[in-house]
Amino acid sequence: MYSYDYLFDFTVGIFMKIGHSRKNATIIAKILLAAEIRGIPSHGMMRVSDYYELWKAGRINVKPDIRIIHETPSTAVVDGDGAIGMLAAVKSMEIAMEKAEKAGTGWVSTRGSNHFGIAGYYAMMALEKEMIGITMTNANPMVAPTFSASRMLGTNPIAVAVPAGRQPAFVADFATTPIARGKLGISEKKGEKVPFGYVQDREGNPSDDPSILKKGGSMLPLGGDYKHGSHKGYCLGAIVDIFSAVFSGANFGPYVPPAVVFLPLLEKQVGEGTGHFFGAMRIDAFQPAGQFKSRMDEWIQTFRDAKSAPGNPKVLIPGDPERACEEKIMKEGIDVLPAIAKDLKGVAENLGLKFKMQ
Amino acid sequence: MYSYDYLFDFTVGIFMKIGHSRKNATIIAKILLAAEIRGIPSHGMMRVSDYYELWKAGRINVKPDIRIIHETPSTAVVDGDGAIGMLAAVKSMEIAMEKAEKAGTGWVSTRGSNHFGIAGYYAMMALEKEMIGITMTNANPMVAPTFSASRMLGTNPIAVAVPAGRQPAFVADFATTPIARGKLGISEKKGEKVPFGYVQDREGNPSDDPSILKKGGSMLPLGGDYKHGSHKGYCLGAIVDIFSAVFSGANFGPYVPPAVVFLPLLEKQVGEGTGHFFGAMRIDAFQPAGQFKSRMDEWIQTFRDAKSAPGNPKVLIPGDPERACEEKIMKEGIDVLPAIAKDLKGVAENLGLKFKMQ
Repeated sequence: MYSYDYLFDFTVGIFMKIGHSRKNATIIAKILLAAEIRGIPSHGMMRVSDYYELWKAGRINVKPDIRIIHETPSTAVVDGDGAIGMLAAVKSMEIAMEKAEKAGTGWVSTRGSNHFGIAGYYAMMALEKEMIGITMTNANPMVAPTFSASRMLGTNPIAVAVPAGRQPAFVADFATTPIARGKLGISEKKGEKVPFGYVQDREGNPSDDPSILKKGGSMLPLGGDYKHGSHKGYCLGAIVDIFSAVFSGANFGPYVPPAVVFLPLLEKQVGEGTGHFFGAMRIDAFQPAGQFKSRMDEWIQTFRDAKSAPGNPKVLIPGDPERACEEKIMKEGIDVLPAIAKDLKGVAENLGLKFKMQ
Repeated sequence: MYSYDYLFDFTVGIFMKIGHSRKNATIIAKILLAAEIRGIPSHGMMRVSDYYELWKAGRINVKPDIRIIHETPSTAVVDGDGAIGMLAAVKSMEIAMEKAEKAGTGWVSTRGSNHFGIAGYYAMMALEKEMIGITMTNANPMVAPTFSASRMLGTNPIAVAVPAGRQPAFVADFATTPIARGKLGISEKKGEKVPFGYVQDREGNPSDDPSILKKGGSMLPLGGDYKHGSHKGYCLGAIVDIFSAVFSGANFGPYVPPAVVFLPLLEKQVGEGTGHFFGAMRIDAFQPAGQFKSRMDEWIQTFRDAKSAPGNPKVLIPGDPERACEEKIMKEGIDVLPAIAKDLKGVAENLGLKFKMQ
């Protein structure tokens, strides 16, 4: 187990060493560690070597000029100037919240960015300001629309955070696919099949092979198959893509740049980098803040009190599992898998830094 | 087959007879007929008798004072004053679009309303003004959250309409459940089982019985079961409920009033009537309008060109099936099932009007 502080300082060191300011490296480290403690390690320390390789390949700008290129009182388009996603995203969400201060709501579509880690982090930034936060991002294509055998969309997550009063906030953060891509890798390593409804083969036939993506297969949208509403999952993924990239001028659909260096950039580009979408709504844009929060408390309590089906855990409020995980990990420390620790050590040594193996 | 005009005039007549102005009855008829021609008859003529019965029971106010009760430059809360949903929704969407004219975007949460027909209609109102339209509504509880055996949410649909240039607009309109509730009724009438993943019994066990709702069962969220991501469908339904009802002060979750008179109002109410949520974003709040539309055209063409899986139809753009249906029905006429025609005749006779049986 590693302590939060050790990994945090290590990560700040890595991102400063490749050219980021201390302030920016701190933002990046905070968001990568947020993924670890919230139980989403696929977007945590594991990504450090991916970002390092992208930087080496010239695909990340460590001195970006992140700026507004179009705006109205409640909207903006932000150009991330090739920044690592976390920096473009934090700045974009800050702009959305500034707009919301004045206009009630703020909506920002961002282009020229890269993979930004966990979507929920940016939605949750709004909570501190008594705002509802919304985040979406497109991602490199892995998902086939209903009826298709082509990878056209990313796992395109949506995050929504709503403040409450006595209750902890409602924080939903989910991919628009039945499972996160990382789960396929875990099943593959365990030598297990996956349930039908997650993936299909290169021809579009149902598959239970967790390594099918390496064989030209694709992931399926939420719903799994047409009979079970996969066209609705496709709609969701499409909406995220359009809001993130058509609005902003980023690459959309099959043109979204890969977040790993071993996949090359496509020759054809239809915009700049990866796209995100951010929203902030002041709770008092709808109701006096105290009243809003007590209504939200009542909503949460009502759903906590829902009857469980026999043999099932209690009904959860979105955000509950991540909060429980955070509490546990902050007590027990962060587990970094040996293969990932080895990668981190390699990156550190290339940069003249150190990473302690356990 | 009935002609559009015959059913339209008939419907205007019915809603005027119960006390609506001609203008308001015309709005209601237009939206009910929009459901018919877009191939969603479960929200069309079939509902006339439901609304009539709700009115008889004093649950619809035919002279509503629909008004803003809270606002900022980009938001409003609207009180529908017990109106039929279509009137509260059209007014709310108009307010959202007026806000968007000035602030770039407009967002309205509405309380004190009733069932409003198809969500897509209001999202599509934005298209005429070169805006993106968004609609959500909560609905009477039929859906159990993941792990639960209780009906806590409606089928809570989301509609998103995005203008394009040469291409027809992108119009997604979908319930946050694998299927619409109406499909269960159809299977029941045909004496067919339904696939697992649509419904569960009163204890929360998987079921393939299309009449299970009458036996205390519930519908499942999009995803179907936890393994296939039903917690994501639950998140979506919850977001729709919170935006529609916590924001506005409408009833939420299990307290949403039934849209049919044979189900009584709950004694406990946590707000006023049914809740909706509307959004309008000017496309030129993000990009010059011409550029936005040509990017959207390119997005649509890219997805039209996606490779179909063998044996599957071509990849559809959200809105394609409804548009094809509209074209066909406007040519061939509207089919009203005998049982529904009989209901319409009954309502007409009670009001001293006529409905021709075919």
